[in-house]
Amino acid sequence: MAALPEGRVLTDPDVTESYARDRTFLPPGRPLGVVLAQSRDDVVATMRWAADHRVPVVPRGAGTGLAGGATAIDGCVILSLSRMTAIRELSPRDEIAVVEPGVITADMDRAAREHGLMYAPDPSSFEISTIGGNLATNAGGLRCVKYGVTRDSTLGLEVVLAGGRVLRTGRRTMKGVTGYDLTGLFVGSEGTLGVITAATLRLRRAPRSIATIAAEFTSLRDAAEAVAAIIAAGCQPSLLELMDRTTLKSIDEWKNIGLEPSTRAMLIAQSEGSPDEMAALCGAASFVATASTPEEADELVGLRRLAYPAKERLGQCLTEDVCVPRSRLPEMITSIEEAAARHDVMISTVAHAGDGNVHPVFIFERGLAEPPPAVWAAADEVFRAALDLGGTLTGEHGVGVLKQRWLGLETGPLVTELNHGIKQVFDPLNILNPGKAI
Amino acid sequence: MAALPEGRVLTDPDVTESYARDRTFLPPGRPLGVVLAQSRDDVVATMRWAADHRVPVVPRGAGTGLAGGATAIDGCVILSLSRMTAIRELSPRDEIAVVEPGVITADMDRAAREHGLMYAPDPSSFEISTIGGNLATNAGGLRCVKYGVTRDSTLGLEVVLAGGRVLRTGRRTMKGVTGYDLTGLFVGSEGTLGVITAATLRLRRAPRSIATIAAEFTSLRDAAEAVAAIIAAGCQPSLLELMDRTTLKSIDEWKNIGLEPSTRAMLIAQSEGSPDEMAALCGAASFVATASTPEEADELVGLRRLAYPAKERLGQCLTEDVCVPRSRLPEMITSIEEAAARHDVMISTVAHAGDGNVHPVFIFERGLAEPPPAVWAAADEVFRAALDLGGTLTGEHGVGVLKQRWLGLETGPLVTELNHGIKQVFDPLNILNPGKAI
Repeated sequence: MAALPEGRVLTDPDVTESYARDRTFLPPGRPLGVVLAQSRDDVVATMRWAADHRVPVVPRGAGTGLAGGATAIDGCVILSLSRMTAIRELSPRDEIAVVEPGVITADMDRAAREHGLMYAPDPSSFEISTIGGNLATNAGGLRCVKYGVTRDSTLGLEVVLAGGRVLRTGRRTMKGVTGYDLTGLFVGSEGTLGVITAATLRLRRAPRSIATIAAEFTSLRDAAEAVAAIIAAGCQPSLLELMDRTTLKSIDEWKNIGLEPSTRAMLIAQSEGSPDEMAALCGAASFVATASTPEEADELVGLRRLAYPAKERLGQCLTEDVCVPRSRLPEMITSIEEAAARHDVMISTVAHAGDGNVHPVFIFERGLAEPPPAVWAAADEVFRAALDLGGTLTGEHGVGVLKQRWLGLETGPLVTELNHGIKQVFDPLNILNPGKAI
Repeated sequence: MAALPEGRVLTDPDVTESYARDRTFLPPGRPLGVVLAQSRDDVVATMRWAADHRVPVVPRGAGTGLAGGATAIDGCVILSLSRMTAIRELSPRDEIAVVEPGVITADMDRAAREHGLMYAPDPSSFEISTIGGNLATNAGGLRCVKYGVTRDSTLGLEVVLAGGRVLRTGRRTMKGVTGYDLTGLFVGSEGTLGVITAATLRLRRAPRSIATIAAEFTSLRDAAEAVAAIIAAGCQPSLLELMDRTTLKSIDEWKNIGLEPSTRAMLIAQSEGSPDEMAALCGAASFVATASTPEEADELVGLRRLAYPAKERLGQCLTEDVCVPRSRLPEMITSIEEAAARHDVMISTVAHAGDGNVHPVFIFERGLAEPPPAVWAAADEVFRAALDLGGTLTGEHGVGVLKQRWLGLETGPLVTELNHGIKQVFDPLNILNPGKAI
């Protein structure tokens, strides 16, 4: 590591420990040290040293991951990209930006808004997550029901490979089909194939106007029917979020939102169309609020943004991330409720309902080193239910280490064999985030 | 090939020759035979036999490709998927379809329209091209300026690998991040990694209403400015097509559209917004036609669909496919005009202008076995100009064999090495469409 300028390497265990975890409850390994990369050259130097010494490298953004993708491995170097924060270029005319991986997601969006554009992917952690972490997990968010996930906004990458060579993939153009889609392969690979040091991102025109409604329902099935109706009517929602009663209750206990005893679910929807049309499509709703000013809209969407902090007040949270075909949403939520009852576990559910992406949050006693067995048993049932419904273990958080146990149920041995074959092409020494993702 | 039922294998050279070409002018190799697969089992049997006998296999859809991806190799088996035409499932509620590779692209769209949905990708050949061919090349089209390319509409695949094993990739859900993006890797791989035998496609809501305009300009730069203005205003066009004077003249000579002597370019635009707004954004236009009925809209878009047949009346066509950042469109078109003048070659240009994807069509004497040297010299200049402008050799047609000569200029040795490494993982015997794409 002599190639790195002073101050870039941390080795004090008290300090390095704080870089060893993401937001999961997995007991991390003990890192050798932490590199605070400030440039591509720092990344190259680190990867060369790691290859020479056969030391595993765990790349890291802001550590907001929910699957353990950035969790330390014993004897690894943590390679933090969070100091590489330059927006190298922003071209309003071409609707692209070239950015470094440490740029905060919401900062990217704000920079684009100055030109009437937006950066669409908005994971719930977007005010603290980095673009690099979003690329590693192929992050989704609230707006992806209309605009797609991180991969859909990524045109090209600069990547440092395991041996320190620098690769450029993709392009600055909207379309291109020269060779295999290496860009798409890196996005979502959880730092196992290379370290992204720059990305060419696609920006989009910000919508001219947004209509916002919030509807309350006395049954989950009615709420799911409203989701289907809003989609089928062609409203093209840019946000379509569902919260269950457990979630609403946790918000009500904190902020006193006047939750009715009969309310079982709330749907929050945004589109560029008419609020009245969306309200009318929530036929079975017990109450519909329509925002008539941007402030009122922020207030309604703000309810959804309160969901996670409200849950965290109740205990420690294991946040899961199953995704099912949209029509199976009611069955998925029923399965979650049944698992909660059977194992006497508190599960509070929010869903990116338009995508069929459901986040059951398992809440358990504070202070435990990891979730108790009943939580894992309930989670196991939820995962299996999602797969039975034609769904997937993870819509947007990634596999990390958290979902390794269930991975084989979804993908099978042939996919595993091919994934490991690809890994071998990019990282023959298996030093890049070994044991994650695949 | 004994495993195949009778009538599935053709070996008469007079017959097999007609399966040896796509729509390029490359002299094809001589195939051993043609397999007309009717099921996945036929594909498995073919791939097993080919692996056992080390015989190269060239998968083939409708043969509408423009880069030689389906051109026969000496001693190969042509594996035609065009008889696998089942739409296995179409779920309006989940907005997905599961289809076989021989389904005609426009048939997929028509099946979706019966449910208020559409299949968005619409390459110009969509009435005769197959979904399998579209997947192989990651085909684009007119609507992809709004809805993206074939990869953006592909959720999962069933693939027969080189040795005959059957792989399932992806999912039925809108989102999913389990493992590497194998689905995206197969799309655009031009049949070099596996043979797609089924695809789970994403359908989209068909727009409620479409506004259509056609605007004439006395300079290309004015037309390009109108493109930029329509995008910047947030019209979200679903079609934004540019035709140069050479193209318009060939249509006028055939259909007598009353082309003005001063007209240098025509722009055709569609959006879900207001036609008057789009017309107003074509500030420098010499004339703007606005469609007030669906029939009038079809007539305006029909002008664009006449472009290729009109060119083919003038001679043989080499259709190219460069793509540049949208702001560089005027420079790209100027470079094409300069190359045409310098080499005394007729080049007629249409562009998916909203994507910066430019199709210069090089027109030359009928009856020649391949394009004359002046055409290649002009094409070489056009390719190099596209790369100099930050663009790519191919926006949507693929590399095939046609663009192999220039591939290294765009991608460099490291990309080539990694692409070949991936190829080796999927096809260690190198029997799947060898020498294509990468």
